[in-house]
Amino acid sequence: MCDVCGCQLHDHHQSDPTIVEVNQNLLNANQKQADSNRRHIEKMGAIAINLISSPGSGKTTLLERTIDALGDQVRIGVIEGDIETERDADRIRAKGVPAVQLTTGGACHLDAPMVHGGLHVLEHLTKNSPLDLIFIENVGNLVCPATFDLGEHCRIILLSVPEGSDKPVKYPTTFKGADCFMITKTDLQAHFDFSAREAREEALKIQPDLDIIELSATSGDNFEQWIDYLQQLLAGR
Amino acid sequence: MCDVCGCQLHDHHQSDPTIVEVNQNLLNANQKQADSNRRHIEKMGAIAINLISSPGSGKTTLLERTIDALGDQVRIGVIEGDIETERDADRIRAKGVPAVQLTTGGACHLDAPMVHGGLHVLEHLTKNSPLDLIFIENVGNLVCPATFDLGEHCRIILLSVPEGSDKPVKYPTTFKGADCFMITKTDLQAHFDFSAREAREEALKIQPDLDIIELSATSGDNFEQWIDYLQQLLAGR
Repeated sequence: MCDVCGCQLHDHHQSDPTIVEVNQNLLNANQKQADSNRRHIEKMGAIAINLISSPGSGKTTLLERTIDALGDQVRIGVIEGDIETERDADRIRAKGVPAVQLTTGGACHLDAPMVHGGLHVLEHLTKNSPLDLIFIENVGNLVCPATFDLGEHCRIILLSVPEGSDKPVKYPTTFKGADCFMITKTDLQAHFDFSAREAREEALKIQPDLDIIELSATSGDNFEQWIDYLQQLLAGR
Repeated sequence: MCDVCGCQLHDHHQSDPTIVEVNQNLLNANQKQADSNRRHIEKMGAIAINLISSPGSGKTTLLERTIDALGDQVRIGVIEGDIETERDADRIRAKGVPAVQLTTGGACHLDAPMVHGGLHVLEHLTKNSPLDLIFIENVGNLVCPATFDLGEHCRIILLSVPEGSDKPVKYPTTFKGADCFMITKTDLQAHFDFSAREAREEALKIQPDLDIIELSATSGDNFEQWIDYLQQLLAGR
């Protein structure tokens, strides 16, 4: 018994069945919409990639450099998720690529219904030129976005060198559902105590089928591996 | 009307009253426990600081250096929040300071009931030497932890130079509830396109009363400002 508030210690941790049920209903509805989104994207003739990371891991910079490298050959569209601002979508539009900004107004992740709305706007923007590749840049958050299937065909977790190589072991749920693990900002390796070997090994213990790419979008180091990866995904449509 | 799943577009975004009610009940219960935690901590003779940031912004390193600087004069205890692992608590214990690791098992934030349990464990660990200062290191996440008062007396948002100076404007809710904004890893400024002026100005637009500290826990740059800040908080007990 707690002598401050009078509660039984740990009582707070017991699950409330109403909360459990509401959460399960939300996730079931999300999954249904995600499956529908996937069919929707396939009907468009495209594939979708969901980019998940903490804020500032380099998702938007990766997209800018990818458009520079592939924009002439591959028709790219982008759905940007942010809590506030159109900044990321503006960076993509400046590259001449259609972008839809979804602002969640506080929510810590995108969900499949939001992306569904985004797909319709993207179709409207590109009605005379179908897309090959849709990037969905999730809200900057290494935790919550991993719970929500958006209807993507490939989920990539980005981790930048400054964040530290202990993150796979500390955020295992995030890595469990991923297809690809991308270590970014490798040009900064000399300034940080980051072990790419530790990060790779721990990530593979959690999800042994992970593809792993280490690159720097700023310096261009190993960027060709990423472009090859995308080309293979597109060839597999 | 969406021709893929047949739904009315944007219907998904309408609020479900059951979800709204459950969330409100959760937040009300959290607030009640947070207020109780605050009284609990004050009865202990201590003050508590809640550290919120993305993964890898330097929260644990800040604590290690703070213990090095103050551990002889100030009795410090630490509550560590992580999804998995005891790693951060082990780093603190290696400094000779009592630490309680709360692993959320997937949850993206600490809440007041979890911290309540942590306070009891901390009291048990330190029963013959009361604490002055309790640090609560939240789960690495710049979004969700900001919604949950833990019973702290001071909330600090950390943002490291590698994450980018656009984060206050992109995560305004997080900054709105803060007492102090700490820019970390300033020794790396030369390697990044980070404008401390932009970050400061945008943060102050959101919360004009913010205290702002720029430092590097690794190089020690400006660390004395942080120590002075803590001394003032302790003097105001």
